[in-house]
Amino acid sequence: MKRFIAPAALLLACSPSLADEGMWTFDNFPAQTVKAKYGVTIDQNWRDTVMAASAKLGAGCSSSIVSPNGLVLTNHHCVRSCIQANSTAVADYVQDGFLPAKREDEKRCPGMAVEILTSISDVTQVVNAATQGAAEYLKAREGAIAAIEKEACDSKEALRCQVTALYQGGQFKLYTYRRYSDVRLAFAPEKRIAFFGGDTDNFTFPRHTLDFALVRLYENDKPVKTPQHLRWSAANPAVNEIAFVSGNPASTSRLMTVSELEGLRDIILPNTLLTLSELRGTLTQFGTESPDHARQINNYLFGIENRFKAYRGRFDALLDPVMMARKRAAEADFKAKVKANTDLAASIGDPWAELEKVQTQRLALEKPYLWLEARAGYDSDLFEYARAIVRGTIEREKPEKERLREFSDARLEGLKSFLSRERVFYADLDRVLLTFWLSKLRENLTPGSQAATLFLGKESPESLAGKLMQSRLADPAYRKALWEGGRKAVDASDDPMIRLVLLTDAASRAARKTYEDQITAPTERAEEKIAKARFAIYGTSDYPDATQTPRLSYGAVEGWNEFGTEIASFTYLQGLYARATGKTPYVLSERWSMAEKKLRPGVVFNFTTSNDVTGGNSGSPVLNARREVIGVIFDGNAASLGGDYWYDGRRNRAIALSTAAITEALKTVYHQEALVKELMGK
Amino acid sequence: MKRFIAPAALLLACSPSLADEGMWTFDNFPAQTVKAKYGVTIDQNWRDTVMAASAKLGAGCSSSIVSPNGLVLTNHHCVRSCIQANSTAVADYVQDGFLPAKREDEKRCPGMAVEILTSISDVTQVVNAATQGAAEYLKAREGAIAAIEKEACDSKEALRCQVTALYQGGQFKLYTYRRYSDVRLAFAPEKRIAFFGGDTDNFTFPRHTLDFALVRLYENDKPVKTPQHLRWSAANPAVNEIAFVSGNPASTSRLMTVSELEGLRDIILPNTLLTLSELRGTLTQFGTESPDHARQINNYLFGIENRFKAYRGRFDALLDPVMMARKRAAEADFKAKVKANTDLAASIGDPWAELEKVQTQRLALEKPYLWLEARAGYDSDLFEYARAIVRGTIEREKPEKERLREFSDARLEGLKSFLSRERVFYADLDRVLLTFWLSKLRENLTPGSQAATLFLGKESPESLAGKLMQSRLADPAYRKALWEGGRKAVDASDDPMIRLVLLTDAASRAARKTYEDQITAPTERAEEKIAKARFAIYGTSDYPDATQTPRLSYGAVEGWNEFGTEIASFTYLQGLYARATGKTPYVLSERWSMAEKKLRPGVVFNFTTSNDVTGGNSGSPVLNARREVIGVIFDGNAASLGGDYWYDGRRNRAIALSTAAITEALKTVYHQEALVKELMGK
Repeated sequence: MKRFIAPAALLLACSPSLADEGMWTFDNFPAQTVKAKYGVTIDQNWRDTVMAASAKLGAGCSSSIVSPNGLVLTNHHCVRSCIQANSTAVADYVQDGFLPAKREDEKRCPGMAVEILTSISDVTQVVNAATQGAAEYLKAREGAIAAIEKEACDSKEALRCQVTALYQGGQFKLYTYRRYSDVRLAFAPEKRIAFFGGDTDNFTFPRHTLDFALVRLYENDKPVKTPQHLRWSAANPAVNEIAFVSGNPASTSRLMTVSELEGLRDIILPNTLLTLSELRGTLTQFGTESPDHARQINNYLFGIENRFKAYRGRFDALLDPVMMARKRAAEADFKAKVKANTDLAASIGDPWAELEKVQTQRLALEKPYLWLEARAGYDSDLFEYARAIVRGTIEREKPEKERLREFSDARLEGLKSFLSRERVFYADLDRVLLTFWLSKLRENLTPGSQAATLFLGKESPESLAGKLMQSRLADPAYRKALWEGGRKAVDASDDPMIRLVLLTDAASRAARKTYEDQITAPTERAEEKIAKARFAIYGTSDYPDATQTPRLSYGAVEGWNEFGTEIASFTYLQGLYARATGKTPYVLSERWSMAEKKLRPGVVFNFTTSNDVTGGNSGSPVLNARREVIGVIFDGNAASLGGDYWYDGRRNRAIALSTAAITEALKTVYHQEALVKELMGK
Repeated sequence: MKRFIAPAALLLACSPSLADEGMWTFDNFPAQTVKAKYGVTIDQNWRDTVMAASAKLGAGCSSSIVSPNGLVLTNHHCVRSCIQANSTAVADYVQDGFLPAKREDEKRCPGMAVEILTSISDVTQVVNAATQGAAEYLKAREGAIAAIEKEACDSKEALRCQVTALYQGGQFKLYTYRRYSDVRLAFAPEKRIAFFGGDTDNFTFPRHTLDFALVRLYENDKPVKTPQHLRWSAANPAVNEIAFVSGNPASTSRLMTVSELEGLRDIILPNTLLTLSELRGTLTQFGTESPDHARQINNYLFGIENRFKAYRGRFDALLDPVMMARKRAAEADFKAKVKANTDLAASIGDPWAELEKVQTQRLALEKPYLWLEARAGYDSDLFEYARAIVRGTIEREKPEKERLREFSDARLEGLKSFLSRERVFYADLDRVLLTFWLSKLRENLTPGSQAATLFLGKESPESLAGKLMQSRLADPAYRKALWEGGRKAVDASDDPMIRLVLLTDAASRAARKTYEDQITAPTERAEEKIAKARFAIYGTSDYPDATQTPRLSYGAVEGWNEFGTEIASFTYLQGLYARATGKTPYVLSERWSMAEKKLRPGVVFNFTTSNDVTGGNSGSPVLNARREVIGVIFDGNAASLGGDYWYDGRRNRAIALSTAAITEALKTVYHQEALVKELMGK
C-alpha cells in the first residue's frame, strides 16, 4: 500500500485537524478522509467490531480481546500490580515471569476490572434542557447527569454508565460499558525483558522491550466467550502500511492558546524542570551513599526522573518554530472566524487578551505559589502530615462550601484514615527533602524576603530541617491524637513541624488565594469562552480533547527524521542482543540469553507509528487495514510528549511491540504452544 | 534634587539609548542629556578629574583614588588573593582582617598592578589606512595596532598603551595608562563581614555586606602623590540623588538580534541551566557525605552555584515581555533605516535572516556539541589530561594555522607545563563528574544513538566511570612521559582514559566542526555585518559594547519595583544585626558582635542605584554631583544580569556599599583614626 504524502504547505494550513492527527470518537470517525487518503474503507461493521474488541483495563490502561475465549492483550506495566500481588516468597513472577502450565492455573488480579464500550448515545439536549435557566448551573448539570446514568444502568451490576462531556461541554454523550470484574493473569514475561532499557530508554527509540502481558476475562469461573475479537497477525508489520490504534487516551490540552503555550514554555516548565533536575541530582547522589539510601530513594526517584523526562519532552516540543507558527496561524484563523460572527464575538469578548495578561502575572506569582503552597514541603511526609492536620482541623469546622476544596466531606474521611494508618517513614529522605525545599524557597523568593524570613527565622535550611526531624508525626498514634483533639490539641502541640505550619499557614494560604484569583480563575473563565466559541464554529469537524474514553486514531507504520537523522521504524530481535550489555537496565534473563541462537533474528521487535496517542493508550492494539492486531502500544517517543498541546506529524511517534515478536517469544522462548494456538485461531 | 520621570511611552521608543542606559567612554559622555534631565553640569574638568582618579585594579576590577597619598578604594573580593598571600600560620588576615598599626606595615600585593587612564586618542584613520586593500586584513590590522602601541609607549615602563576596537571595529582608540606595580594592602575587614550573606545573597538585595578594602600605590618605596583624587563623603546618600559610576565593565552583547536572544532563552540557557542545576544537586549532596567530600567540593561547587545564578538571572531577564517588545521595536527601526540606505542594504544583505536560520540549526546541533565536545568530561581532571595529551600530540605535528585554535605555539608551551605540574587530584569528585557526564551524554543524545554506543560500549555510566578511575593520569610523571613520547607513546598506552579519548576523538571533533561551520561561523559573519550597519547609521550617538576599558555611567540612588513589591534603595547598619542568624553565611565576627551598641543604627549600609554596570565594575566608585565618592559598587541585583543584553531601567540595579558605612566601621569597629583622617582630608 502506498501512502500519499501531504505537501509541506498543508502543514501550515488552518483547518483544525491535519495529517494523521486526531483521537476520534467511534461515532464520529473521519472514514471519508481515510478512504480518500489511504484508499482504505473503514465501514460501520469495521468500527463496531473494533469497538467491541477494545477494552479499558484497570485505572488508566487500554487493551484488546484477541481470542474467542476472553483472552486480553495489554502491557506488562499495566498489570504489574497483579503480577506482584500473586507473587510469593517462593514464586517471584515479577522476576521470573508468569507461565501457567494450563488455563486452570491462571491467577486472579485483585481489584482489576476490564470494561468494553457497548453503546454511545447523545444526551446533550437532555443535559442542556435541565441546565437551561437553572439558578445553580453546576448542581443542575450534576443532577441531570446522575439521573441519566442511573436510568440507563438501572443498577445492573455488569454495566457502567457514564455521561462524558466532550468539546469542553459542547456535547454530552452517554457511554455504556460492559464490565468484567473477574480478570485473571494468563501470561507475563520477566520484568527484565518487559522493562528492558528501564527508565533510561523511556520515551526513546530504537527500543527492545517485550512490554506485554495476557489476561483473561472470567464469569462464573469460566472464560468469557468473546466472538467479537481481533484476529492476530504473526507476520512482521510493513513500513508505511496504514495503522489504527484503539484505546483510552487520558487527557490533552489542545485548545491552549499561543500565550498559554508561551507561559508553559517560558515560566511553568522551566521552573518545574530546574527544580526537578536539581532534586534528581541530589537524590541520585543520595542513593549511592548506602544500600539503605538506595532503597529509600528507589520508587521516589523513578517518579522524579519520569516527570523530568515528560516535562522536558513537552518543553522541547514547545520550542519547535514550525509547530508554534502553525498554532499561531490556526489561532489567527479562529479569531477571524469569531470576529466575523458578531453575536458570538460580543458574547465572549476577548478571552485571548485575558490569557495574555495572565501569563504576565505569572512572572510575579508563580514562584511564591510554588514554594509557599503547591510544592511546600516538597513531598516530605512530616510536612504533609502537619499541613493536613493543621488545615484539616480548621477547615472541618467550616460549612463544606467555604472550605479549601481538598477538605470536602468525602475527602475528610479519606484523610482521617490516611493520618491514622501506619506507613513506612524514611527519615533520611525526609530530611533531604525538607532541606531542599527550604533552600529553594529561600533562593527563589530571595534570602532577604519576608517569606524567607518567616519560614527560616534565625535558622539555615539545614539547621531548620534538623530541628524539624524532632517531630513526632511519623507516629500514627500521635497524628490520630492531634486529629481527634482538633484545633485545641493542635494549638497546644509543641511538635516543631506543627509549629512551623501554624506559623506559616496564613502566608501559604495568601499565596494560594492570590494565585487562584489572578491565575487559575481568569484562565478557567477565558478557556470556557474559547471552548464555547470553538464548538460553535468548528463543531464536530474537529475531534474533542481526550477524556479517558475510547478513541480511534489512524496513521502509518513509519519512522521519523530527528533533526536530520533518520530514525528507522523497526528494531529486530537480533538488535536486543547487541543492546544487552549485562549492565542495568540492559540485562537479559537466562531464558532470553539461552534463546539467542533459536530466535529468528529478522523478526520485528518494536516499531513506531504516526498514530496520535497519549498517556492512557498503554496497551492499545495497533491494527492493520484488515483489522488484524499487529502490535501493542507501550510508549511514545520524546516528541509525542508535545501531544498534550498538538500533534506533530513529522516527529510524534507511538511506540509498539509487534505481535510478530510476541508470537516468536511465546513459541521459542516460553514454549507456550496452547496460547500461540489460541492467538492464531487454530 | 528632583528627578525627572520619563513617561512610560518613552520606554518603547526606538532611539538606541534610553533612560539612564549606557556605559559611556570618557571622550563621548552625553553631558547635554544629563544637564537636560538632571540639571547637573558635567564639564570637561569634572570628567578629567574623575578619569584621573579612577583606576583599573588587577585582572578584572575597578577602583578609585581617595586621598592625596595614593590610597585606593576597591572591593574586598578584588584583593582577596593579596590578603591570602600575606596571611601566615600565625596571622590569618582572611579570617581576622588586616589592620596595620601604621603606614609602614602596609603589605605588598604580589603581582598586582593598578592602571590609570591618562589619554585617549583616535587612531581609526591610521588603522583603516593600513588595512585598506590589504590581502590579509587581520594581519594588517594587528600590525598597524602593534606599531601604534609601540610608538606611543616607546618602551616607557610605567606606561601601557593599548588600541581598543570600539563599536565592533567602527572606531579604534589608543588608550594610554599610567601603570603602578607596587600596590600595598592598607586595610581589609574580616571575610565574614566582607562576604556576609555569601553566595546565598549574591545578586540579591536587601544586603548587608562590607565588601571593601583599601590599597595604596607606592613608587620608590614611598606612597605616590595623587593630587587628583576623589573627595570622600561620610554622609548617608539620599534617595533619588544623581549617581555616577566610573569603572571598567568587562563585556556586553547588546547588539544581539531578537532571534539570537530567543536562541539564548529557548536553547542555550535552558540546556546550561538544567545541567548546572542537576550537577549542583549532585555536588551539594556529595558535600554532605564527609568532611573530605566537603573539602573536595568547596571551590568547585561555589563556581557552579555562581554560574547557575548568573545564567538564571539572564534567563529571567529574557522572559520580560516589555524588554523583548522594546528590542523588537528597536530592531524594526534599525532594519527600516538600513533598508532606506540602498548601498548599505545591498552591501550587508539580510544578516537577520541568517541569524534566524542559525537558531533553528541549534535545535539539532547544540546537544551533540555540548556533550561530545564543549562539556565533554564535565571538568574531570583525568579527562582533561587525556584530551590535552591525545589532541596535543596530534596537533603539534601540524603547521600552526591548521591546528585547533587552543594548540597555538604560545599555548602549547603553557600546556606542557600544565601537564607536568603536580596538582591536587580529588578522585571521588572526579568519579562523580565522569559519571554525571556519561549519564547526561547518554540521556541527551538518547541511549540508542550511535554516539552513546560509541562512548559507553557495553558499559553503564557508573561502570565505565569506575574503570576510567584506573587511569594513571593523576601522576604528573606519567603525563610528562606521554607528552614527551608523542603519538607513538599515546597510541601504545593502555591507560583507560587515553583509550577512551582515542576511541571517541573523531566523533567529538566532528561535532565541533559541524557546530563551528553551521553555528559559530555564520553567527560571526552576520554579527559583523550588523555591527557595520549599526555604526554607519547610529555612529557615536550610541555607546559601544563594554570592552574592559574605562567607562562612565549616570543614574540615581533608587530602589525598584520587583513585580509589585517595592524594594527600598537602602539597608542600614541596624539591619545587619537582624540578619545575623549565627548560621552560615550570616555569621558575625566577635568584633562586629561587640560593636552593635556603639554603631549608629541609622547609617546607610548598602544601597542600590540605577547605573548601568556589569562584571568588571566591581570596586567602582559611586559619585554624587559634587564629585564626592558616596559608595563602592560590589554587585548587581538579579535583573542586572540581563545587562548582558540590555539595560532595563525599571529593574536593573547596581549594589553599592556606602562610604558612610565604611567611615562608621573604620571609626567604631576598627578604630582606624589615621585612615579616617586621611579619607576625610584632614
